[in-house]
Amino acid sequence: MEELLEQILAAIEQPNREAMEAARRRQAQLAKPPGSLGRLEDFSVQLAGITGKVHNEVKKQHLLVFAADNGVVEEGVSSAPQSVTLQQTINLTRAKTGASALTKYFGCGITVCDVGVNAEIRDSAVVDCKIAYGTQNIAEGPAMTREQALTALLTGVRMAQETEADVIGIGEMGIGNTTTSSAVLSVLLGEEVEKVTGRGGGVTDESFLTKKRVIREAISINHPDPKDVIDVLAKVGGFDIAAMCGAFLGTAATHRPVVIDGFISAVAALCAVRLCPVVQNYLIPSHASYEIGYQLAMEAMDLQPILMLGMRLGEGSGCPIAFKVLEAACAVINGMATFDEAGINDEYLDEIREGDKFTP
Amino acid sequence: MEELLEQILAAIEQPNREAMEAARRRQAQLAKPPGSLGRLEDFSVQLAGITGKVHNEVKKQHLLVFAADNGVVEEGVSSAPQSVTLQQTINLTRAKTGASALTKYFGCGITVCDVGVNAEIRDSAVVDCKIAYGTQNIAEGPAMTREQALTALLTGVRMAQETEADVIGIGEMGIGNTTTSSAVLSVLLGEEVEKVTGRGGGVTDESFLTKKRVIREAISINHPDPKDVIDVLAKVGGFDIAAMCGAFLGTAATHRPVVIDGFISAVAALCAVRLCPVVQNYLIPSHASYEIGYQLAMEAMDLQPILMLGMRLGEGSGCPIAFKVLEAACAVINGMATFDEAGINDEYLDEIREGDKFTP
Repeated sequence: MEELLEQILAAIEQPNREAMEAARRRQAQLAKPPGSLGRLEDFSVQLAGITGKVHNEVKKQHLLVFAADNGVVEEGVSSAPQSVTLQQTINLTRAKTGASALTKYFGCGITVCDVGVNAEIRDSAVVDCKIAYGTQNIAEGPAMTREQALTALLTGVRMAQETEADVIGIGEMGIGNTTTSSAVLSVLLGEEVEKVTGRGGGVTDESFLTKKRVIREAISINHPDPKDVIDVLAKVGGFDIAAMCGAFLGTAATHRPVVIDGFISAVAALCAVRLCPVVQNYLIPSHASYEIGYQLAMEAMDLQPILMLGMRLGEGSGCPIAFKVLEAACAVINGMATFDEAGINDEYLDEIREGDKFTP
Repeated sequence: MEELLEQILAAIEQPNREAMEAARRRQAQLAKPPGSLGRLEDFSVQLAGITGKVHNEVKKQHLLVFAADNGVVEEGVSSAPQSVTLQQTINLTRAKTGASALTKYFGCGITVCDVGVNAEIRDSAVVDCKIAYGTQNIAEGPAMTREQALTALLTGVRMAQETEADVIGIGEMGIGNTTTSSAVLSVLLGEEVEKVTGRGGGVTDESFLTKKRVIREAISINHPDPKDVIDVLAKVGGFDIAAMCGAFLGTAATHRPVVIDGFISAVAALCAVRLCPVVQNYLIPSHASYEIGYQLAMEAMDLQPILMLGMRLGEGSGCPIAFKVLEAACAVINGMATFDEAGINDEYLDEIREGDKFTP
């Protein structure tokens, strides 16, 4: 599996510089002050680099949600019981949750993939890629074996590769996964646990202290190697984060933009970038998560969020809105006239000359 | 006309507190951590207050663009020639500009209203409400008479009232209108010209100094009364800003949300709020304009932008994207299940109980 991963990483290509340059030239010709459409222009250039084409469409949109349980919840780090993972995993396929209500409304596809929910799911709408019934408790030992981490990661790669869409968003469902995400981020950035740990779904003051203590213990007990992303994911991560990391890689490998949701998604994206820095060119931010570690993860990837909505739900709920911003970026470069094309007809040009002489 | 304006201001109603409370209760019942959808929740509550209903739709969207010329351009405050106003006013009706490429793509309506373009427009797609062929040069005297300011404002009110839509965005086209907007904002906030004046479409260093000097002169020559919004608009404003101010009032008067675009739109919204503080409840922000005065205008209305896109085009270009965020807010409160509804069937509840006993 290590070899297969190496092949995938090697297959992720640099963005197409020629297409990006052509997109920049087109933007400079459009009838507007240079740069006045800001990041809508930047995204159009980025998309050109990703697809190799100046004119792109992102109408076919898909949200990939990876669901898994985390053994660490037995430490009392979460505000919700573990059974909520199963419940919301199923509800995600029924358009009842936040993210899935949004994908249904906006006509995006959604795939919910069980990579480690702690229950047998007898629901064909959930894709069964279960690796185990939840991870082990990271406060006591590694979350999973290295082999399991690689399996989860390659599952994510495959899910992304098999998803037919112009753009993919990466979300999750898993009680306890802000704890594992903070642990992974703390190790990857060499940052203190305090600085990367928030209240997740909304724990009490006491549970918040427990959460931070548990993360510190998990890191100290497991000794993850910050230079070995797979080791970090296996020791203090989760099946969801590992699969999401793979989905970022798989989307990039197939020359498509991939949208980061909130905190957990950003940590998974950072794992992907650490495995393969070229992936950075394929990443599209969405909303600024309220979780404290989010901004640090984004800064580590040199990314700034698009949307300031104070959201902290997860599930991929920020992605459907970000898809619309990407559509806007395409609409501008595809639809606007150039300065030449914007020149109005002779009758009006006469009018303009005459107009210029008017004194009000 | 003063009397008519007073009637309109008096007709703008307080938001419906009962509907807002009902929307808050619904949000508290939805299957998510409390507050985890952040401003999407806030917008759903705001919409309830505006319409009096908990469940709203904002599918019918419209952009109102007011076009006018500004006499002050003869001072050399702008990077583009005045004829661009006419050219882009017409191009706005042809889906060739930034904002109109977006409205076309997203299926929003657009109405372009000439309230003072310095040319005769023989194009039936542009609504003719011309008050004059551009304003007078504010560096030499008042932009317009008080009567003209009231006419422009009431034109905006009427345009908004007559527009059939669930939500309206307010944009503009007018070379030189960042100069007039900065002048109006400086007076309304009692803020130094330096602090509210940016480079607009992108003037040179020299023109930027000229722009700031001209605004200072305009204020000093005209002595606008900061407590009298109509006086400020008439003396240092423009037909576009006055009409936009009216459109904010007219949309609020008809119990509909109204979206602020960038800097000029924010200044016009602030004028509306100063005329009638209740209007604040009807305002929806969109993108954070790159123009320096934007943030001050928004702070004065206690508003924060939704979108961080580094845009500074104007025309209403931020509104179509903000409409999508409002749609998302509606999709969540309308589509998500409550905790009760999210309970999965008995088979799965058994599964959950069993699942809880699993040890991974």
